[in-house]
Amino acid sequence: MKKGLLIVVSGPSGAGKGTICKELLKQRKDLNISISATTREPRKGEVDGVNYFFLGKNKFKEMIKSNEFLEHASVYDNFYGTPKKYVMDKLEKGEDVLLEIDIQGALKVKDIYPEGVFIFILPPSMEELKNRIVNRGTETKEAILKRFNSAYKEINFVFKYDYGVVNDKVQSAVDNIKAIMKAEKCRVNRQKELIKKIEEV
Amino acid sequence: MKKGLLIVVSGPSGAGKGTICKELLKQRKDLNISISATTREPRKGEVDGVNYFFLGKNKFKEMIKSNEFLEHASVYDNFYGTPKKYVMDKLEKGEDVLLEIDIQGALKVKDIYPEGVFIFILPPSMEELKNRIVNRGTETKEAILKRFNSAYKEINFVFKYDYGVVNDKVQSAVDNIKAIMKAEKCRVNRQKELIKKIEEV
Repeated sequence: MKKGLLIVVSGPSGAGKGTICKELLKQRKDLNISISATTREPRKGEVDGVNYFFLGKNKFKEMIKSNEFLEHASVYDNFYGTPKKYVMDKLEKGEDVLLEIDIQGALKVKDIYPEGVFIFILPPSMEELKNRIVNRGTETKEAILKRFNSAYKEINFVFKYDYGVVNDKVQSAVDNIKAIMKAEKCRVNRQKELIKKIEEV
Repeated sequence: MKKGLLIVVSGPSGAGKGTICKELLKQRKDLNISISATTREPRKGEVDGVNYFFLGKNKFKEMIKSNEFLEHASVYDNFYGTPKKYVMDKLEKGEDVLLEIDIQGALKVKDIYPEGVFIFILPPSMEELKNRIVNRGTETKEAILKRFNSAYKEINFVFKYDYGVVNDKVQSAVDNIKAIMKAEKCRVNRQKELIKKIEEV
């Protein structure tokens, strides 16, 4: 059985990974989304079990202890994590899973699941990234500055990823991710069983 | 300046790399084709300077001496080679080059230009490969058998390539190669200059 692809889409705050993933999921109905768990407060419009599983800190710590996360980390005084079972079950069944995740989380997933496809969403420029963070308008000035400085440092983590997709236009970024998925399925090291079968018939 | 991609399409006789490349070139007018040189006799319909540069053995040996080939090899008592200058000039200008080549040639190109994209065209089955070689109908029975045995052994070289594309339907193989090209352009290690630029603005 050919395993599904774990598509890890990551990048700094404001690069637009959320918008891109939302559009990608609309266009690829076969793609499963991995829902992260977090202890942070929901932002306006976010729904429990859709955007995140919003958990209390005690519940989260219990799950860490029983090794139920693919990765977990604390960012801005809150816990974030990826429940393991759902992702692994889908991949084993040959289905693809999309994981939208911050950089710290992505790098931990890469450590234990290097066969994932690691995509870093890049802003067209740092100037544009700043505008996007400011225009999000859900935070205090101090939080915005903290977020931008952090994002600036984070850009260099792109070199730990397989692919860098510039988010200048959402559809063009989505097209690039679709091409990456199609190409990765052709990678020789993902097709060993198929090749064996071809030789036999 | 971002370098172009060298797309190396290879595979055993009868897998259909010629048909696929022809269709790919029709659909991607921006793609340059690298024309190989050979000392073998032209097959019916082949045109000098279009399908190959058909050279005499002495001329070919002179060019080897003056290091004018990206790779060269002898197959079935004839020389084959890829003139170097044309390919390198296009890549430097940021243009993509398609190189359709036998397996021995591809592996030599990989040695000296590992940043190329190495694609192996797979037949849907060995049975189907045999049919295609037989139906080509341009050779003696002995030549056909020699070609099939050689093709069978060659399949295992797929593991030295980046991608394996099964030629069940030509358009689907072409679509896969197009996706591979799009994806490879997003590879982080091909975008170092772009990423530096993003950080500066």
